[in-house]
Amino acid sequence: MPFDINPVSREPFDEAFRERLDQLLRSRRDVRHFRKDPVDPALVQHLLESAMLAPSVGFSQPWRWVVIEDPELRSRLLADHAAAKEEAGHIYQGALADQYQGLKLSGIGEAPVHIAVFADCSTETGHGLGRQTMPGTLLWSVVMAIYALWLRATAEGLGVGWVSILHPPAVAAALSVPEPWTFVAYLCVGWPEEYAASPELETKGWESRLPSEQVVFRR
Amino acid sequence: MPFDINPVSREPFDEAFRERLDQLLRSRRDVRHFRKDPVDPALVQHLLESAMLAPSVGFSQPWRWVVIEDPELRSRLLADHAAAKEEAGHIYQGALADQYQGLKLSGIGEAPVHIAVFADCSTETGHGLGRQTMPGTLLWSVVMAIYALWLRATAEGLGVGWVSILHPPAVAAALSVPEPWTFVAYLCVGWPEEYAASPELETKGWESRLPSEQVVFRR
Repeated sequence: MPFDINPVSREPFDEAFRERLDQLLRSRRDVRHFRKDPVDPALVQHLLESAMLAPSVGFSQPWRWVVIEDPELRSRLLADHAAAKEEAGHIYQGALADQYQGLKLSGIGEAPVHIAVFADCSTETGHGLGRQTMPGTLLWSVVMAIYALWLRATAEGLGVGWVSILHPPAVAAALSVPEPWTFVAYLCVGWPEEYAASPELETKGWESRLPSEQVVFRR
Repeated sequence: MPFDINPVSREPFDEAFRERLDQLLRSRRDVRHFRKDPVDPALVQHLLESAMLAPSVGFSQPWRWVVIEDPELRSRLLADHAAAKEEAGHIYQGALADQYQGLKLSGIGEAPVHIAVFADCSTETGHGLGRQTMPGTLLWSVVMAIYALWLRATAEGLGVGWVSILHPPAVAAALSVPEPWTFVAYLCVGWPEEYAASPELETKGWESRLPSEQVVFRR
């Protein structure tokens, strides 16, 4: 009877826990301002193990984590980020262009922990189950694992920043990963300079939160 | 001073909360066996609001939720799922084919709450920030929101099943959604028949959990 050991049925989550969980979801931020203090490697390992409790299509577990310690590699990736940020800025004109220049969009230069996350698109784990009509679900499984890491880190008081302003081929080349791996995210992890109540893009006037009536529909 | 109202700095999450959070991550399952009891619509709304606290690239909030109440529409989607499941079975031979036939891969027939989730790929919210070199991040933002809903539902004792064995064009047509919306997930939500300690695909011998040494690397 494997269900006997299930923690949910033995001890249901209570209202106090759900309130704190809501606080966790509300207070999780994309952090771009880090202190340089180190993070215990055992804690980083715990975050990775928490991440890998995420669902994956057909139990394919396609996540591949590359912890980057080499300062030379970090510098190469910071340079690629700077180039990609500059290129992407060309799509803006006028006030938006000025605002874009003023945004700090990553903490690659300061964060003590750097993790590049990939999806192994060639994995046979899970035997292709559940993704014949929706192949994207393999990669999406990795995305859910990242969010688990993010929430678990937030519960420690750690900050996480997902850097997407990079050239995927440059990241794959710098890190010498196998060819079938698809780059998903570059995560900066560390102690945040401050705990922000709202997304920085909201505070700085870049974008505001949509009301739920605009995005929830019924059929 | 917006940071003054931040719940993290005022009351840090403690070890007891983190242990329960780990239990939540461990006990969350993909549920395919539901009781038919209804779920309070206010609770469903709370789950959706929790989901929308997820990060989104450039604060683009591209999630679009379609709550499906019409029994005729539900039947059409169940029929599409059955057809897609049958088609996908052709990739298996021998023992795996027999095993596949025996797997129940969705609770569309029983779950009291059905939510189809889409990404609005034409949204201008967020002004394209952060996704010029990685356009997939728009869709991935929706995937994170789904995982938030999943965890928040699990904390209520609810089960969630992500059905990916569907033809995306058939789902979009049945629900008459705008053309630029990309289908991401069909979620079944309800009270589970039982709380399983392990993924059903693991219990039934379809796949086993990978040790972290096989998927964590250093550079």
